[in-house]
Amino acid sequence: MKALTLNEAADFLRSRDNFVILTHRKPDGDTVGSAAALCLGLRSLGKTAFVLQNPQLTDNFAPFMEGLTCEAVPQDACIVTVDIAGLEMFGKGMEGLEPEILFDHHDTNRGFAPRGIVRGEAAACCELIYDVLLALGVKLDKPMAEAIYLGTATDTGCFRYANTRANTLRVAAACIEAGADTYPINRIFFETVRLSRLKLDSYMAEHMELLCGGQIALCPIPLDVEKSLGVHEDDMGNVCSFLRNIQGVQLAVTFRTDEEGNTKLSVRGAPGWDASALCVPLGGGGHKGAAGATLRCGQEAARAKALEVLKELEFIS
Amino acid sequence: MKALTLNEAADFLRSRDNFVILTHRKPDGDTVGSAAALCLGLRSLGKTAFVLQNPQLTDNFAPFMEGLTCEAVPQDACIVTVDIAGLEMFGKGMEGLEPEILFDHHDTNRGFAPRGIVRGEAAACCELIYDVLLALGVKLDKPMAEAIYLGTATDTGCFRYANTRANTLRVAAACIEAGADTYPINRIFFETVRLSRLKLDSYMAEHMELLCGGQIALCPIPLDVEKSLGVHEDDMGNVCSFLRNIQGVQLAVTFRTDEEGNTKLSVRGAPGWDASALCVPLGGGGHKGAAGATLRCGQEAARAKALEVLKELEFIS
Repeated sequence: MKALTLNEAADFLRSRDNFVILTHRKPDGDTVGSAAALCLGLRSLGKTAFVLQNPQLTDNFAPFMEGLTCEAVPQDACIVTVDIAGLEMFGKGMEGLEPEILFDHHDTNRGFAPRGIVRGEAAACCELIYDVLLALGVKLDKPMAEAIYLGTATDTGCFRYANTRANTLRVAAACIEAGADTYPINRIFFETVRLSRLKLDSYMAEHMELLCGGQIALCPIPLDVEKSLGVHEDDMGNVCSFLRNIQGVQLAVTFRTDEEGNTKLSVRGAPGWDASALCVPLGGGGHKGAAGATLRCGQEAARAKALEVLKELEFIS
Repeated sequence: MKALTLNEAADFLRSRDNFVILTHRKPDGDTVGSAAALCLGLRSLGKTAFVLQNPQLTDNFAPFMEGLTCEAVPQDACIVTVDIAGLEMFGKGMEGLEPEILFDHHDTNRGFAPRGIVRGEAAACCELIYDVLLALGVKLDKPMAEAIYLGTATDTGCFRYANTRANTLRVAAACIEAGADTYPINRIFFETVRLSRLKLDSYMAEHMELLCGGQIALCPIPLDVEKSLGVHEDDMGNVCSFLRNIQGVQLAVTFRTDEEGNTKLSVRGAPGWDASALCVPLGGGGHKGAAGATLRCGQEAARAKALEVLKELEFIS
């Protein structure tokens, strides 16, 4: 892939028309915000631009895609990807599509398009899209600003995570100045909690097992508990982080059962702890902060195996 | 009070020495961060500066005050207040002190010093202190930047609340650029939750009463429940917000018993709802978003009175 400068990317976009922008499978706020902002920006320059409908789009993101989507990719369309780290992140209906340019912020991106920009240091792809729009001479309006803001906020836990950098905050500031109404977005994504999720939190607070002087928290979540609480899959994203955020807890482990009856471990580690040290011996992987593993056994057996590894690591005796 | 420009304030501070900075009663991150940053900034210019010890300082804020505090105000000290809205916010040991200059962001500040700056549009007093340090020609270092960041983040719920403006984010960006390590601060103030608080959340999720199609949530919290869960007073600040953040809830009401056996109502309203409409008829007050009232009766009787007002307001039948 040819790595472009901002001006080269802007020149390329100016030279083409009939854009279809792709978002990644299980779309999040950053891919949705990047696609919406770029689509609106290209339209503001008189271009024809759409975002390919993503069948996995959840309700919270639907308003950002209103009026922007197309159901299929027309012949001769110029395909652009945003926040897509690799072909494995292409969802259903995107098989075989050949993007001409990509914009991304995952430094694992190996470049599956002939040209593009990968800005690994950015917290959100929206930071890059903001600069692309500036290079194109687009004047940020309210819907574009809210889309950009969505990506910067959701990829950083509303600017709480360690990936937040000065530029992330500056881009968000520029969005507010361009008219973005940010509180309603923050309220939906960072304040509102489903009752079923609260009940699950209660369950975990009651049933978790604390080891190593309260530094390690383990919590199996049986499938029948999930069903009886009416837990949404949308609620489960940060279940393990919830455990890790309890005062004193440094390493948190949750156990869930998937459709095939396997047990999925999720592990989160505080700074100074290594979540992957527990998952790698169990056949999984990940990073220090977050890791996972899938075990072909029930939750009780998986818990026993995890305890064995924790003993080997001398976290518990 | 003479309203000063930034340069006038900087000139005044340059002309004086032996500063003692006052923080408000029940100190929060903004008064602590403002005081610490201003104290460090004045010291960096060769001035003698201290922050008056605040007996109500909680553990989370103690590191920001390390090495900065004095136990008493020396004769001829130049007293400065930060983030103090009025004399009623003076705590124990501050009685009778006469500040020479004040810096604040509460637009209700009526000016209890001969001179000062009140910037009502700022989300945090730290935004103003940042500008004062710039006007003084202070070079922001890591401890100053972390103190300023503390105030901007804690006064906005980590940039989540509606008071966050572009300048708040820009000041936070400048703090990161000056070397502030923000994630450890965010982790303490926005991620870590005490187990006792989680258990209280569980209690509320189980015992709350939903009215008006789930739009109004009521929850009495008996004193013996607080005691049996071992709830810290520090945990209780946003208890009512917790209820209001449940999906669908627009108006949340909690009932707690104070030391004298009175019942304290806290009410939080989503945008479009008026929390004070419930509290004013009960002898209390507040704003649309947040209001409160103290009733000289037990929780059951207080709940009955609140239901009566909700009926009068035609929220329930």
